[in-house]
Amino acid sequence: MRILGVDPGLRRTGFGVIELDRGQVRYIASGAIVVPADQPMSERLRTILANLREVVRQYEPDISALEKVFVNTNPASTLLLGQARGTAMCALADAGLAVHEYTALQIKKSVVGTGRATKHQVQTMVQHLLRLNGLPPPDPADALACAICHAHTGQLSERVLAIDAQTGATVNLPRHRKTLRRGRVIGHG
Amino acid sequence: MRILGVDPGLRRTGFGVIELDRGQVRYIASGAIVVPADQPMSERLRTILANLREVVRQYEPDISALEKVFVNTNPASTLLLGQARGTAMCALADAGLAVHEYTALQIKKSVVGTGRATKHQVQTMVQHLLRLNGLPPPDPADALACAICHAHTGQLSERVLAIDAQTGATVNLPRHRKTLRRGRVIGHG
Repeated sequence: MRILGVDPGLRRTGFGVIELDRGQVRYIASGAIVVPADQPMSERLRTILANLREVVRQYEPDISALEKVFVNTNPASTLLLGQARGTAMCALADAGLAVHEYTALQIKKSVVGTGRATKHQVQTMVQHLLRLNGLPPPDPADALACAICHAHTGQLSERVLAIDAQTGATVNLPRHRKTLRRGRVIGHG
Repeated sequence: MRILGVDPGLRRTGFGVIELDRGQVRYIASGAIVVPADQPMSERLRTILANLREVVRQYEPDISALEKVFVNTNPASTLLLGQARGTAMCALADAGLAVHEYTALQIKKSVVGTGRATKHQVQTMVQHLLRLNGLPPPDPADALACAICHAHTGQLSERVLAIDAQTGATVNLPRHRKTLRRGRVIGHG
């Protein structure tokens, strides 16, 4: 399964593609869509839409994952971020992909093991988990982390369902997940 | 010249198409894209994108106009509105249309003659200016008002430029515009 992670922003939209194969994540590609600030807003958004469409065409992901944002800064910035985010979401949906959303807390817990991880810790763990030669830049790293988070979440669900099928017992999925998340990342320790 | 006005929202996105022909505005079509609230966000945005694309395909506008929003409510609503607005903007730009933005103040001044106009006054003036049989619903009315605002703004620029060419004098465009906007709407009194 190929997962496309996206970290949307008006100036820089990070993207990262990974493959999940028998419990192992593998790096496929990553980058950032950089949009000049001197263009009209509609043109900037069109650039994000067109480039994400191109990323999907080129790397053919099966599913996508997006960071859920919480905002409490000034309303004008929130509106601009919302516009970029809406563009990314509709681009992915328009390309036929389901869009899963994860909070920064979920992503950090899944990738680093703690919700209080720094940006640098996320970059370092992404480099480690995907066996990259160098530290990925912040935007692609966040996008890759989001994709990894989706891979882990999906894996956990599958494992829990498998246990359920074997034992016939009712499994408390949320609690089970929490325990696993707090420990080391599964399959890439 | 055909103008598509759009009033974006997550639940209801109003649209209105008018034609500007020798200083007269003519009604072509209007409506609202209504999105069920129980769908995932990406699906809701995809619906807005797909339907606006269809509106452009069907009515073939030459240009588009969008209401500029100012937000000071809660950040979560602002983000959601931004997402809907970003989707509408990139849909229009992706369909090859230039997107002009007007503030609510500009639209009300242009259509009603005062920036303090109520929603009902906007609906009434849109009905009057476009010679509609009934009062248009709020969302299509706002979209049509936005399109009418663009028509007036474009007309004024053309007139001022015409005067300039005849007299050879330097025309103070902003002041001229302001005076005309405060009076009755030109060409449809």
